Amino acid sequence: MRNGERHQRIAYLGPEASFTYLATKSLFPNEELEAFSTIPECIEAVSEEKVDLAVVPLENTIEGTVTLTIDYLYHEADLYIVGDCLSKIQQHLMVHKNQKDNWQSIEEIYSHPHALAQCHKYLYYRFSSVPLQRYSSTSAAAKLVSENPDRCIAAIGNVSSAEKYDLEIVQKNIHDFQFNHTRFLVLSKSNTRLPVDHSEGKAKTTLMITLPVNVSGALHQVLSVFAWRKLDLSKIESRPLKTGLGEYFFIMDVHADENGAMMKGAMEELAALGCNVKSLGTYYTFLTRE
Amino acid sequence: MRNGERHQRIAYLGPEASFTYLATKSLFPNEELEAFSTIPECIEAVSEEKVDLAVVPLENTIEGTVTLTIDYLYHEADLYIVGDCLSKIQQHLMVHKNQKDNWQSIEEIYSHPHALAQCHKYLYYRFSSVPLQRYSSTSAAAKLVSENPDRCIAAIGNVSSAEKYDLEIVQKNIHDFQFNHTRFLVLSKSNTRLPVDHSEGKAKTTLMITLPVNVSGALHQVLSVFAWRKLDLSKIESRPLKTGLGEYFFIMDVHADENGAMMKGAMEELAALGCNVKSLGTYYTFLTRE
Repeated sequence: MRNGERHQRIAYLGPEASFTYLATKSLFPNEELEAFSTIPECIEAVSEEKVDLAVVPLENTIEGTVTLTIDYLYHEADLYIVGDCLSKIQQHLMVHKNQKDNWQSIEEIYSHPHALAQCHKYLYYRFSSVPLQRYSSTSAAAKLVSENPDRCIAAIGNVSSAEKYDLEIVQKNIHDFQFNHTRFLVLSKSNTRLPVDHSEGKAKTTLMITLPVNVSGALHQVLSVFAWRKLDLSKIESRPLKTGLGEYFFIMDVHADENGAMMKGAMEELAALGCNVKSLGTYYTFLTRE
Repeated sequence: MRNGERHQRIAYLGPEASFTYLATKSLFPNEELEAFSTIPECIEAVSEEKVDLAVVPLENTIEGTVTLTIDYLYHEADLYIVGDCLSKIQQHLMVHKNQKDNWQSIEEIYSHPHALAQCHKYLYYRFSSVPLQRYSSTSAAAKLVSENPDRCIAAIGNVSSAEKYDLEIVQKNIHDFQFNHTRFLVLSKSNTRLPVDHSEGKAKTTLMITLPVNVSGALHQVLSVFAWRKLDLSKIESRPLKTGLGEYFFIMDVHADENGAMMKGAMEELAALGCNVKSLGTYYTFLTRE
């Protein structure tokens, strides 16, 4: 928020204390945040201008089917990416404060099934005989623990869940893969750019490219367009359009501004090759405060 | 199972009546299926030879974080893919049989948050004022409905959940994207091939390739190795090795046998270019019975 302006309204994938909330709060500490319960609801909120921006997970999350974000952006909504950020997905073991000295004899552990899976090795080596209870979200699990001060049970979740429900974190960072990050996108109805005060230097453009036909080497030809111009790709992912029929689209992140001469040339050539190219905008990666 | 042999034991990502169960049952109708509660547990079961094979989702599922499968295969387990299959993810609205004439006045709808998200448009247009209740799995939601014959409530889930809990499907295929499929992998400890009686014709090889350095055009160079040999790719996906540091590995599906002359040549050249190449094996896509 800049001086004299109203607070921006930011939709995020809830519930409150979710990993998306953590990322959104870090990006927009002074704005008005509103939780929605699904990715499509977040996308529609910004599409219908009920909010100014929406923050949704793109990759590797426990909270949403990530392909839903891509499919909605490709098939449904006319939105732009105005920023992205990477957040560490850190899972902690937490108990009620009354139980903080008893945590080594926990009788049950509650969390979202995906969070339990992410902590598989820790749970296997440390609590192999303790029953795991599957819950609809990590924060719902934390809430349950907070409501049962007399039971020696634990939840697995993030710092924000522990704070919201006043739980004691007794083991930090119990997830298996330490380099695990989730990427979040900031979506807007207009192709503007967020004011950059703490971002990584390079501008990035996300393209969705449909190949004209599924011929051997078509992707190679598409990449040639970027390669000889020394335009660097930081992500490429194929998605089937109609499974089994050999039609694909590709999501690519290119480290360049869509208004630059090289990118304009590349996009014109892709169109001339018969590709359908949709730019989701040029934006910067925001650094989250951790 | 062939005549005279023991039943094979197949691990799958549960709970029973999950989408993975449906795919596994279709692939192995006569074998002994065993549910595990997380993807890592399925992978370890086959790795430690507690079971013969494991079936896990790779893409676009509501049951597991898909990247967990890729990360475990890359970083942890020494397993091979011996088959894959594509299954339609079909979501249905189901009620207790006592309530089958009252379903238009449902008071609450229960399901996994991701399944609710997949049916967003149907729910928005048809039941916008009905509260949605998030549950840990679609089959847990079906179980709840089956235990409350007097309440006018519904669950969203697959055919198998309806059958298991004897519910009435009152609206079929209420998911937003009709071409939605999930891909499942069949994993084995040995690089054998499943006997093919009902598969798509072409052999496929999955490679995990780490680029030597993150230079502009390195991926293009890698694809050249496949393109001039007319080796067709049906999937490519980049995954960060250490986020922010610009190191990637790529998962590629190539329509060719790893023992063929062209593939051997391609893999030797990739190694000569400084790439780290790991083949997860050559296999066929099984057609599921629907």
